[in-house]
Amino acid sequence: MVSAREAGHVKVGVLTVSDRASRGEYEDLGGPAIVDYLSARIASSWEAVRRIVPDDRATIAAAIRGLADDDGCSLVVTTGGTGPAPRDVTPEATMDACPVPMPGFGEAMRAASLRTVPTAILSRQVAALRGSTLVVNLPGKPAAIAECLDAVLPAVPYCIDLIGGPWMELHGGSVDPSGRPRA
Amino acid sequence: MVSAREAGHVKVGVLTVSDRASRGEYEDLGGPAIVDYLSARIASSWEAVRRIVPDDRATIAAAIRGLADDDGCSLVVTTGGTGPAPRDVTPEATMDACPVPMPGFGEAMRAASLRTVPTAILSRQVAALRGSTLVVNLPGKPAAIAECLDAVLPAVPYCIDLIGGPWMELHGGSVDPSGRPRA
Amino acid sequence: MVSAREAGHVKVGVLTVSDRASRGEYEDLGGPAIVDYLSARIASSWEAVRRIVPDDRATIAAAIRGLADDDGCSLVVTTGGTGPAPRDVTPEATMDACPVPMPGFGEAMRAASLRTVPTAILSRQVAALRGSTLVVNLPGKPAAIAECLDAVLPAVPYCIDLIGGPWMELHGGSVDPSGRPRA
Repeated sequence: MVSAREAGHVKVGVLTVSDRASRGEYEDLGGPAIVDYLSARIASSWEAVRRIVPDDRATIAAAIRGLADDDGCSLVVTTGGTGPAPRDVTPEATMDACPVPMPGFGEAMRAASLRTVPTAILSRQVAALRGSTLVVNLPGKPAAIAECLDAVLPAVPYCIDLIGGPWMELHGGSVDPSGRPRA
Repeated sequence: MVSAREAGHVKVGVLTVSDRASRGEYEDLGGPAIVDYLSARIASSWEAVRRIVPDDRATIAAAIRGLADDDGCSLVVTTGGTGPAPRDVTPEATMDACPVPMPGFGEAMRAASLRTVPTAILSRQVAALRGSTLVVNLPGKPAAIAECLDAVLPAVPYCIDLIGGPWMELHGGSVDPSGRPRA
Repeated sequence: MVSAREAGHVKVGVLTVSDRASRGEYEDLGGPAIVDYLSARIASSWEAVRRIVPDDRATIAAAIRGLADDDGCSLVVTTGGTGPAPRDVTPEATMDACPVPMPGFGEAMRAASLRTVPTAILSRQVAALRGSTLVVNLPGKPAAIAECLDAVLPAVPYCIDLIGGPWMELHGGSVDPSGRPRA
C-alpha cells in the first residue's frame, strides 16, 4: 500500500543534449527548466544530477549509462536532440543505452503537444528502461518541457516503483499501485 | 460484401501470462474476464482455447506459436506481462513470435485507458500478426481488459478477414470491408 | 525567419503501391488523389514525380531511394500497401530505405482516421527520413488520403526545412520554425 509507504530519496538525472550548450556558446535553458518544473512538482526528497553533452550518439548513450549505473538515478530526463535534423540523435542514443522501450510516453507527450502546435508530430522522443532507471526524452524548447512532463509525470512514481526504485511523492496527489489516482 | 457473407467458426486463443497463476498460487482472473467479454460481444460461432504460462519470454512465444499454428486460432489475446517490471516480457515474446507489427492497436488501447488512469502509459502492450493469426496483448488487470478490447474489437473481424481467416460477426454491428460501420 | 524567407521549388514523389495498378488492371486512384490534394494545399512552386510499383518490398524500397536520391524529392508520399494483408509491405519497405523513423506521423494519422472509422487502427503506415527526404505512407483508399494528410501536412514544411530542403509555403498559413502557426 502506498499510503503506508515511506517516500525515499530520489536522484534525477537531467541531461542537456546540445552541441552549442556543451561548448558553452549557448546558455542551457532546457536543463534549468526541467529542474524548476520538478522542484514545483516533487513533494518528497530528491536531487538533480545535471550533465551537458554534445549531439553525439555514443556520448549521449554513455551519459545515460553513467547517470543510471554510476550515479544511481531512478529517473533520467533528457532535453534536446529529438527532432528530424541530422544532428538529432537522442532517441537513438536512448535506445542504445536502454533495452526496454516504453512506447506510451512518446505517444502521450506528442498527443499532448499536438493540442498546442501541429509540429509536435516532428518530435521523435522516446522513453525506455535501463535496469531500475526510467529515461524520458523531452524536446529542447523550454516551452515544450512542461507540456510534455504534465502528460507523463503522474505515472512516473508508480513506474519507478515497479522497476525497483524508491517511492517518489508528487504534489497534488500521486497515483497508487492500483493505477487509480488517490486524493 | 459482408452482408452476403457467411460467418465462420472462429477459434480464439486466450493466453494468461503470470508466474503465480501458472504455479497455481493465484487464481487466473484475466483469462476468464477475456472469455466473458468475448462471449458478450461475438455473435457468430466461436470457441476459446485457454493456456496459462509463466512470465518467461521463450515459453510465451512458444505458446503463441502453438495457438496460431497448431490450434488454428485466428485471434490470440494475451493478458499479463505488459508493464515495466523486470518479469514483464509479453510484448517482446509477442514480437519474437509475430513478424508483422500492428502499431495502431497499442496506441488505441493506451489512449483509451489514459482517459481513465494516468498510469495507462506504462503499458507496453503490442499487437502483431503471425500468418493468419492476430495477436493482441492486454494488461493483467481485469478492469483494464474491457477498456482495451472496447477500443479495438470493432476492427478485429475485418483484420482477421484481411489475413485470410473466417468472418466473425459482432453484436451491435460490425464493420464491413469498406471500413465503414454498418447498421 | 520564415517571413523573410523565399519559398523554393519542391519536388514531391507520389508513389502508388499496387499489384493491380502496376499491371494496368486497375486505375490508380490514390496517386491522382494525392496530386489533387497537394495542388489545393501547396501555395509555392512544386511538381509531382509519379511512380507506380507492385507490392514487392525490394521494388518499393528501390523506388523510394530513386525518388529521394536521383529525382531529388524533398517529400515522398506513398499510397497503398499499409494494411495487414500478406502483400502489404509498404511500411517495411519504407523502413528499409529510410534509417530515421518519425513515429509521430503514423500516430497522428491513425488517431485522425480513428475519429471516422474504427478500422483505422489496422493501418500500419509509417513515416521516416532518408537524408533530406521525408517519406510518408498513406492508405490506399482515396477517402483516407485527405484525412491523413490533413493531420500531418501543416508540419511538413518545417520538417523539410529542418532536414535541409527548400521552404514550402502552404495555403491557409504555414507553421514557422518556432513551431507556432502564423497568420
